[in-house]
Amino acid sequence: MSPIKPQSGMDRVAPYIPGKPIKEVERELGLTDIVKLASNENPLGPSPKAIEAVKGALDSVNFYPDGQSYELRQALARYLNVDPDWIIVGNGADGVILETCMAYLDEGSEVVVSEHSFPMYDIFASAMRAKVVKVPTKDYGLDLKAMRQAITKRTAIVFVCNPNNPTGTLLRRREVEEFMESFPDDVLVVFDEAYYEFACGEDFPDTIKYLRQGRKNILILRTFSKAYGIAGLRLGYGIGPKEVIETLNRIKEPFAVNLLAQVAGIKALEDQDFVRRTVQLVNEEKQYLYREFSRLGLPYVESYTNFVLLEVGEGAKEVMNRLLHKGVIVRPCGGYSLPRHLRITVGTREQNERLIKALEEVLGEVR
Amino acid sequence: MSPIKPQSGMDRVAPYIPGKPIKEVERELGLTDIVKLASNENPLGPSPKAIEAVKGALDSVNFYPDGQSYELRQALARYLNVDPDWIIVGNGADGVILETCMAYLDEGSEVVVSEHSFPMYDIFASAMRAKVVKVPTKDYGLDLKAMRQAITKRTAIVFVCNPNNPTGTLLRRREVEEFMESFPDDVLVVFDEAYYEFACGEDFPDTIKYLRQGRKNILILRTFSKAYGIAGLRLGYGIGPKEVIETLNRIKEPFAVNLLAQVAGIKALEDQDFVRRTVQLVNEEKQYLYREFSRLGLPYVESYTNFVLLEVGEGAKEVMNRLLHKGVIVRPCGGYSLPRHLRITVGTREQNERLIKALEEVLGEVR
Repeated sequence: MSPIKPQSGMDRVAPYIPGKPIKEVERELGLTDIVKLASNENPLGPSPKAIEAVKGALDSVNFYPDGQSYELRQALARYLNVDPDWIIVGNGADGVILETCMAYLDEGSEVVVSEHSFPMYDIFASAMRAKVVKVPTKDYGLDLKAMRQAITKRTAIVFVCNPNNPTGTLLRRREVEEFMESFPDDVLVVFDEAYYEFACGEDFPDTIKYLRQGRKNILILRTFSKAYGIAGLRLGYGIGPKEVIETLNRIKEPFAVNLLAQVAGIKALEDQDFVRRTVQLVNEEKQYLYREFSRLGLPYVESYTNFVLLEVGEGAKEVMNRLLHKGVIVRPCGGYSLPRHLRITVGTREQNERLIKALEEVLGEVR
Repeated sequence: MSPIKPQSGMDRVAPYIPGKPIKEVERELGLTDIVKLASNENPLGPSPKAIEAVKGALDSVNFYPDGQSYELRQALARYLNVDPDWIIVGNGADGVILETCMAYLDEGSEVVVSEHSFPMYDIFASAMRAKVVKVPTKDYGLDLKAMRQAITKRTAIVFVCNPNNPTGTLLRRREVEEFMESFPDDVLVVFDEAYYEFACGEDFPDTIKYLRQGRKNILILRTFSKAYGIAGLRLGYGIGPKEVIETLNRIKEPFAVNLLAQVAGIKALEDQDFVRRTVQLVNEEKQYLYREFSRLGLPYVESYTNFVLLEVGEGAKEVMNRLLHKGVIVRPCGGYSLPRHLRITVGTREQNERLIKALEEVLGEVR
């Protein structure tokens, strides 16, 4: 009996290859004491306030979560100073990307993305049988002018990842303002700001401003997986005009966001001290990594996130594998069309020293 | 500025209306001491072993979950005595329904469902721009012969909910065997067995058998939301041939299932004593509800689940609303095309007595 045939869009769906979990490396390589610097997780652990909130809600997990995430949306609305109806909570920001693709991509729609960007835009858009138009980067950063030019009558969504994953580059306020000036009203622009907390400041684009001005074609994505340290709970959100949020709500899984993530998110938001400590550690340690990469003669891209894109050359995959055997997990970037690069999460000093020591050894072996 | 236009399939997507959360009723009606019998949650709470496992994993929620759910799939494979590659874990069984629709429904595909069944089949299929063919039920139960006859050359998926939500009816082993004998090889049949634990026994169809026989066109869905009592964590799974599971994995969100749900699932599976106590309580209390419904002169459908479909007549929505004001949440069935009915979860004796008392009062008011 032959297998059931997937729908036609599935042909173009490339698999997403995540960072290897620590337990998988333990199991497969028989190692212990592993350092994972592959998925841009928080080196300080989860927000302690979030964990306290989770403990308090354990007895009630026999109940379905609130599908509307009422209380969390209220908390986010207060924090962001926007209307709660402008917010949708997702099973990670990934969940909102999926819902956006499902809601807005028709047969033959086009989606504009950067060639080196988060692969889920491509995966979900392809599954909806849309055409994905990939625009080359400029000095590793998103080329907004070229992305603007790639828009056609068929374009439904443009994904702008800022700061960009996996390159770590930042689009500044002025660039985004120029981009938005000529941006067509009938195309949705999604600003994926998963790494916002590491980059925010005077020069960061005020994307929420466009919503306040009444623009109907913008969706902004943020997450609790990075600076708030609760990637394992799965929590992200989208900020957009009421009409977009309503449309996404119609197609979302009714209970997409689990109950514990919702209570954790409310308390994590109150734990801005934890976010500050995280950002400070990451900024300090990024300087350490820059110095060490320079010492090892490895080019890197200056990063506005909690990871650094490192150019190791043709043998990048081999370097990644050898690091793995020394108990250090980093991310190969073939899936991001950057086969000569590794994406390395900024860890604690101890973790970063482990990485540098292992990297130095590996480079000695392969060169 | 006019809103961005959703894709063409969205026109046919009807909103899913979940059972009202307790907090929402508290907030909106200013009530306390509320009994929720609207979402078929476990009246005994969550499996205690599952909760212990969650506590032990809280410190590691800064890490992303294992996207492959390796350990949970191993545990499920042992429990079910199948290959781990036959299992996909989802963000609730809903998550697997979504992935199945995304993976297999093309423009113009047809999906066969029962007219009174779980609405998510319809919602996700419509979003994929497939045509949903609704087959009438027979004595509230799925009419497999009519569903078989509704299959055309364009049919991609047939959804068979057994026991059926919201009617509670059971398709017996022999009926399903007959159905499968003439079932075409190029159509996927999805047996949604979310209420399996309440119905399993000699007469329950052995659907996994078909996988062992090498059939490639079957997917079986089960959940931890009902008998295991962890609906709030979001955990369900699909059992299918390797090829189907691989296809679903290609399109699933990489981190669809949160870390705590995965560890909870492993321990919940070991807590079969909890499942037995749940099923026993539900069976005893169902008898109590049957007696009371009969005393009140209300027809009900005999149920193989932890809920009962009750016919209250034209004023069903009014009855539901009045119950709500007395602090008892039940489920109206308009969204299931049964506007004269209420779906009532079997609770503890105390909860059921609250329901019956409130129902008796309300019937006195509206009649």
